Amino acid sequence: MFSKIILFLCVIASGTVQAMLVQKQRFTLDSFTTENGQTIAPLNVGWEAYGKLNADKSNVILITHYFSGSSHAAGKYHADDAAPGYWDAIIGQGKAIDTDKFYVISSDTPVNANAFDSNVITTGPATINPATGKRYGLSFPVVTIGDFVEVQKALLDSLGIAKLHAVIGPSMGSFQAIEWAVRYPEQVQRLIPVIGSAYMDTYSAIKLQRWAYPILQDPAWHNGNYYDSGQPLQGLSTALAYITQDALHPDSFNPRYSAISADAGIHQDITALPQAWQQLLAQARLRAEKQDANHILYLVRASQLWRAGMGDNWQHALSRVKAKTLFLPATGDLLLPPQLSKHSAEAMTAAGNKPHYAEIPGSFGHLDGVVGISAVAQQIHAFLN
Amino acid sequence: MFSKIILFLCVIASGTVQAMLVQKQRFTLDSFTTENGQTIAPLNVGWEAYGKLNADKSNVILITHYFSGSSHAAGKYHADDAAPGYWDAIIGQGKAIDTDKFYVISSDTPVNANAFDSNVITTGPATINPATGKRYGLSFPVVTIGDFVEVQKALLDSLGIAKLHAVIGPSMGSFQAIEWAVRYPEQVQRLIPVIGSAYMDTYSAIKLQRWAYPILQDPAWHNGNYYDSGQPLQGLSTALAYITQDALHPDSFNPRYSAISADAGIHQDITALPQAWQQLLAQARLRAEKQDANHILYLVRASQLWRAGMGDNWQHALSRVKAKTLFLPATGDLLLPPQLSKHSAEAMTAAGNKPHYAEIPGSFGHLDGVVGISAVAQQIHAFLN
Repeated sequence: MFSKIILFLCVIASGTVQAMLVQKQRFTLDSFTTENGQTIAPLNVGWEAYGKLNADKSNVILITHYFSGSSHAAGKYHADDAAPGYWDAIIGQGKAIDTDKFYVISSDTPVNANAFDSNVITTGPATINPATGKRYGLSFPVVTIGDFVEVQKALLDSLGIAKLHAVIGPSMGSFQAIEWAVRYPEQVQRLIPVIGSAYMDTYSAIKLQRWAYPILQDPAWHNGNYYDSGQPLQGLSTALAYITQDALHPDSFNPRYSAISADAGIHQDITALPQAWQQLLAQARLRAEKQDANHILYLVRASQLWRAGMGDNWQHALSRVKAKTLFLPATGDLLLPPQLSKHSAEAMTAAGNKPHYAEIPGSFGHLDGVVGISAVAQQIHAFLN
Repeated sequence: MFSKIILFLCVIASGTVQAMLVQKQRFTLDSFTTENGQTIAPLNVGWEAYGKLNADKSNVILITHYFSGSSHAAGKYHADDAAPGYWDAIIGQGKAIDTDKFYVISSDTPVNANAFDSNVITTGPATINPATGKRYGLSFPVVTIGDFVEVQKALLDSLGIAKLHAVIGPSMGSFQAIEWAVRYPEQVQRLIPVIGSAYMDTYSAIKLQRWAYPILQDPAWHNGNYYDSGQPLQGLSTALAYITQDALHPDSFNPRYSAISADAGIHQDITALPQAWQQLLAQARLRAEKQDANHILYLVRASQLWRAGMGDNWQHALSRVKAKTLFLPATGDLLLPPQLSKHSAEAMTAAGNKPHYAEIPGSFGHLDGVVGISAVAQQIHAFLN
């Protein structure tokens, strides 16, 4: 046992494994009916896969992405890409999610935040509606975590994949992972909700409304009809700045931005903005280039509406889960704190399941579930094997 | 010892003590020079006192108020007032801060949030500047926690009070209390920072900027010149809604607002706002009637600039404190979490002081330091006596 762990850690640490080269693929549904009875036609999402599908298609692991993320979970598109996919530390040859053994699939959600990233394929408000020849804007229907799962289900059906060895996702990805296990209990064998929750409490949903507010108040938003006049960049950048801060713990935030105590200008001038705030906004402004303000609003809404089973009783919905489950909240998470994972695990226990629970250590807060995931690589490896 | 505590608890619990009747008084400085070298002339603040000043003026306790608070710390103006001052649970005859023994003074800060409350006297942007005959607006200088302390010092000087048995305040009041002990170490014998901190970290300062944002973005704000055209009520109400949420823990927030999971409208319509959000805003809108948007911006700025000693090294500044000190953070505080009190206490310990530390239990989060203060009444009583 020990020697296995040590071998595994050595492979992780060796750094000799070349980055996987990966490709984006396109999945098209000619028509998709949303949970609230609307039709989207067609609906496109991008997807990536790592490793090889075995003969009986029994080695599939589905990765579901977080709010600001995409299907690019691992590898690089080109050898000289600045960075690999977000969970490259745990997905690849000899890694915790071992692509020598598993066929790992990851897909973009509808209304993906990164609507203008050339590596993302998504249908949402920024998409031209073929029926009108115009961008959907706010005529796009409200979509839910359940809708995201149904699109992924259609993708897997199209590939002839009927069983999932595991579904794993961080944050909003955990919502999708849990919904998979609730809707398709016979097909999901293992479930790992990372920095997640089986429900959105009112407090957290209102915090998300505060991400939407700067967009809704930006005069350039024009009720979502800004595609000719230009994005509401002020509102969008502010929303993205809030998301960055909320995903970090003070211990990692403070050293990264100008110290407020050294900010002499704001003592002289009430209209001066703190330097740290300006830095945060400038970084967000760069990210805003590839994102769409309306898509952020739709992701906020999908997240606000989240509860397992999407019905009246998320606790009861969890009783349908048959998957072996491992909750992995981050100890320092201030956005979806461990309490939410604990409540979710308790509800699952009350429903007769026996979920495992471990915490991700680190100083990044919520982001420890993304950038700090290697801290629990061993637990993930052990749980999958 | 035990019998004393039991007697004390019985007095607290008996409820037979009539509400103290209290009066607002006015203190005027003909001219005040701010830390950044500006002049405010005149400067008025309101103050209240409970108990009797003894002959040698040695029984004074100063109470410093929180961000949204005022000098109304205890008692009622009229017997039929709906509620007494915010810390009435611990200030009064036979209470933790016993007015049979102590003369308790509390004053409004400059730029007090409640500029249009008839029980608050404060000078700030909403005040008419006699030099121009117009409201100050943004021509009012940036003021600091140090400035608040200097105004209180002038008030106490005017009363011939040279020593303070204790300075006690919650939240922004803790900042003032600590600054008192740093600036006037020979005069402050005891210090109790409640739900507070000896410094504002960059993370917390940026969270405060997010309170300012809705006001700054409201077109009705008009760069602070709205006194003829009407307050930026949308921005102000939103800011106050954020303050309410940030001061609460999810355990107390969630049961008070409509459950997000029962909010069917937001699943049908992307433009629908969550009911809980509307409730929160409606409550804030009522409070906004008595508050001034510019004053909120100035309080945000004073809080952002806060660090003990208002210089380059707050840790070093704490070495000047001679007061016996008791930090009282609230366990569930998500706004100024116990970590900030711990860091403050550690810095004070490193500087040679021996601060005491205890946590306020409860489910209200930051607000446990106000509405839940009776949970530590016994510790406060013991520390003062």
